[in-house]
Amino acid sequence: MAQQCAGSDPWQDCLEVAVAVARQAGAVICDALRKEQTVQIKSSPADLVTETDQNVEKMIISTLKEKFPSHSFIGEESVADGAPSILTDNPTWIIDPIDGTTNFVHRFPFVAVSIGFTVNKQSEVGIVYSCVEDKMYTARRGHGAFCNGKQLKVSGQEDISKALIVTELGSNRTPEIMKTVLSNMEKLISIPSHGIRALGTAAVNMCTVATGGADAYYEMGIHCWDMAAATLIVTEAGGVVLDISGGPFDLMSCRVIAAGSRAIAERIAQEVQIIPYQRDDQ
Amino acid sequence: MAQQCAGSDPWQDCLEVAVAVARQAGAVICDALRKEQTVQIKSSPADLVTETDQNVEKMIISTLKEKFPSHSFIGEESVADGAPSILTDNPTWIIDPIDGTTNFVHRFPFVAVSIGFTVNKQSEVGIVYSCVEDKMYTARRGHGAFCNGKQLKVSGQEDISKALIVTELGSNRTPEIMKTVLSNMEKLISIPSHGIRALGTAAVNMCTVATGGADAYYEMGIHCWDMAAATLIVTEAGGVVLDISGGPFDLMSCRVIAAGSRAIAERIAQEVQIIPYQRDDQ
Repeated sequence: MAQQCAGSDPWQDCLEVAVAVARQAGAVICDALRKEQTVQIKSSPADLVTETDQNVEKMIISTLKEKFPSHSFIGEESVADGAPSILTDNPTWIIDPIDGTTNFVHRFPFVAVSIGFTVNKQSEVGIVYSCVEDKMYTARRGHGAFCNGKQLKVSGQEDISKALIVTELGSNRTPEIMKTVLSNMEKLISIPSHGIRALGTAAVNMCTVATGGADAYYEMGIHCWDMAAATLIVTEAGGVVLDISGGPFDLMSCRVIAAGSRAIAERIAQEVQIIPYQRDDQ
Repeated sequence: MAQQCAGSDPWQDCLEVAVAVARQAGAVICDALRKEQTVQIKSSPADLVTETDQNVEKMIISTLKEKFPSHSFIGEESVADGAPSILTDNPTWIIDPIDGTTNFVHRFPFVAVSIGFTVNKQSEVGIVYSCVEDKMYTARRGHGAFCNGKQLKVSGQEDISKALIVTELGSNRTPEIMKTVLSNMEKLISIPSHGIRALGTAAVNMCTVATGGADAYYEMGIHCWDMAAATLIVTEAGGVVLDISGGPFDLMSCRVIAAGSRAIAERIAQEVQIIPYQRDDQ
């Protein structure tokens, strides 16, 4: 059945539908960036949510639901409104309508629509549309990762002392957490590594690893909707995703290392002190 | 005389010549990014210099010298080769062929050609060409700042608790300096402010302030060729540049605060602990 993306190429239809809706969502976001915003405060001043965020999520979910009525959905704004955030074996769309909400509010030009798709808890499709840059990153398991049609390949760098790392200070302003976040940065920069960059969106940060522009990204305290699409883009570009502990990556764990090589991912796991965030499914 | 940019609109010719050469330089850089690089190590692993860097500077200076033989020149690579870095009253071009050399080496997509022009030590023309993004930022004193022809305006945000700040960890890996850099970030993020971003180039970071996308940028340990063009772009977009102490900005001081309002610039000056770097002219 087409609506379940079945057939010899089972998830190609899902990819195509999701690319189309991501592009549509990006147009709404770019349009909103040209207008004034009414901004609400969510859990912290850095965690801003806008009308656009909610409207774009509704648009994406309703489009996908119409096409794939049997599928499940996990969306950032729906979860904020009380919807459960449990990953099952059912085909599941995991959606961040605007990854980089603080950037969006400031018009800092990195905001992305992130749409991941899992079946049996495994990522099958990932789309990150960095709409101001007009960069459409796509991946399908076993079929490679692409940006605007051009195939992506990670750097493959194995030496952390030659690595460019991407991470974020995050939105948590608890003093002890801030101290750990900064001390982790200090450890990695002091190895020494080449530098640390921060674009303000987990999804776009990970896509820079997929392009080979950065060698690694790590962060704790993010969510499955920030990671579902971009982690597949990284692995399909030849990269590695691990849990921050160095163990297997867990989509619901709220933490990730995405790197151009296993050696760098494992080295980051060794250096970084873990911040105990609650899981998305708890 | 045309070659001295004289006349009723004295520096318009300088702007036009510099835009043309910046675009040419950007094409060479983008071309080089498609090829493999031979990389040398300068003062630290994060301070990489490439053949392209040197070739692009030679190209820019020879073009400008031919057009304006009486002008003076300060260029990053020439200074690295032993040329003096003293600003005089003579019309002076201050050039960074590739701002964001580490980004360049990694193909992290923010690298800029920076061309500033001073007369009587005052900035008259500033050009920052972020070549991978194809964003040409230009300013002429008293005539506004533009990106690809669109006039720029800073955010005007006066409340630091609503500010998005851009800064860098920098290339110095001395443990005490790294500690101060990180502790300055901690102070500013803990106010709390909305967040900190780092694109890896001083010039492009400042241009995000000029666009209103970020509310402030500060850094110490950078150079006149990183700041000459972008500081004029910020002030011509309605922003403020100050010394890190809160006093008047000094192009040769190796430090700057560039902000969308005087209130935020002064607040950053209050919070930040000064790192004593040598001046460019000492």
